[in-house]
Amino acid sequence: MTIESKLEQMGLKLPEPITPPGNYEPVKVHDGLGYVAGHGPFDGNNVLVSGLVGRDLTPDEGYEAARATALSMLASLKVALGELDRITAWLRVVGYVHCAPDFQQNAAVVNGFSDLVIELWGGAGRHARSAPGQGPSPLNVPIIVDAIVAVRSSADNGVQMR
Amino acid sequence: MTIESKLEQMGLKLPEPITPPGNYEPVKVHDGLGYVAGHGPFDGNNVLVSGLVGRDLTPDEGYEAARATALSMLASLKVALGELDRITAWLRVVGYVHCAPDFQQNAAVVNGFSDLVIELWGGAGRHARSAPGQGPSPLNVPIIVDAIVAVRSSADNGVQMR
Amino acid sequence: MTIESKLEQMGLKLPEPITPPGNYEPVKVHDGLGYVAGHGPFDGNNVLVSGLVGRDLTPDEGYEAARATALSMLASLKVALGELDRITAWLRVVGYVHCAPDFQQNAAVVNGFSDLVIELWGGAGRHARSAPGQGPSPLNVPIIVDAIVAVRSSADNGVQMR
Repeated sequence: MTIESKLEQMGLKLPEPITPPGNYEPVKVHDGLGYVAGHGPFDGNNVLVSGLVGRDLTPDEGYEAARATALSMLASLKVALGELDRITAWLRVVGYVHCAPDFQQNAAVVNGFSDLVIELWGGAGRHARSAPGQGPSPLNVPIIVDAIVAVRSSADNGVQMR
Repeated sequence: MTIESKLEQMGLKLPEPITPPGNYEPVKVHDGLGYVAGHGPFDGNNVLVSGLVGRDLTPDEGYEAARATALSMLASLKVALGELDRITAWLRVVGYVHCAPDFQQNAAVVNGFSDLVIELWGGAGRHARSAPGQGPSPLNVPIIVDAIVAVRSSADNGVQMR
Repeated sequence: MTIESKLEQMGLKLPEPITPPGNYEPVKVHDGLGYVAGHGPFDGNNVLVSGLVGRDLTPDEGYEAARATALSMLASLKVALGELDRITAWLRVVGYVHCAPDFQQNAAVVNGFSDLVIELWGGAGRHARSAPGQGPSPLNVPIIVDAIVAVRSSADNGVQMR
């Protein structure tokens, strides 16, 4: 089953991909790796959730924001790669959590991102992760996530030839 | 001499490895690189030091926390790789320092991590590094460090065959 | 035209390279990638601009600080690689913006870095990017930027042999 059919089966729809608000690329592919820019909970360039986790948002709302961030990142990856199935492994994720000074449940928030990726990719979706706190945040989004993924060449369709 | 005998010679003992408090892997290996999750000054999942550097902790206490963080990361790497000697080079380190708003000695704090790695690996331990400040911090730890290391395949024992 | 002649044509001069204020390398090269340490707006180790963007500095002043940061990084890369033309692609950039709690224009600030790199390298300079906010900042610099670049072996001069 393709990643996109799994998304459909889960009742999830990719949002519109972002148009980067600065001079950068959402995804840069080089030598089998995809370097993915920081994404937030966006539908296109619309901010779906804003505020500081632990003050304006509960940890659960932060979790949902992280899940929406994963969907926005997948939308960018689909544009960049053509097929989400070209992602053969998730390697490294950083989730910068925009949270109140005394907030400590960063891991629970960023799980909103990781849970979705791991549900879709299984073991290949499992990744190393950091979840530092950030005070100020671009566009006041509660979370930014960037990633490094392993990418199969588009010429290689993953089918073994006899 | 193996890395573990060097540690022993230095009178250092690896702590218990962490069980990640979120849905992620402590280390993900892919294509000769090890992507290492953010670690803190932990023994198992017990926080050894907490607080804000420059308010609750002195720079020297921050340095010690960064050194403890290195040991926790080495414990995870030992589990993931079997042998610490499979790490052939340290490439990139980010030390997120949980510090007071006016604190500026991030470099001195993160040296607690880098000094240990370089003492153990020599020139191969030398790495590029960033040391941004983070306001809030997961579990109120004074520092989180993540890394990318070069890893030798487990089949390749580093011994040249004649 | 070489990158250095382009810089000259733009009337830009590389500053003195930094001497790292901690135990780390400005650049570590491994297997075709250059891992670049966090740099700030430095000339040698002199801080050219300090303060918090959105309080002490305007977004435009932040932009100029990010541009000065790019020049400091290029000075380090020239020392490490011999020739800036050995950089064949910019892959991933993180710009940690030291900004006021309510500041949201991180993207506009970090463009000061990205615009210069893209002007010099064209399409190969285009990169994925994150721009998290950091509260405290080492040496009170308004921005720190680190990067991963693709590097051509020094033996390979890029000229195709017949």
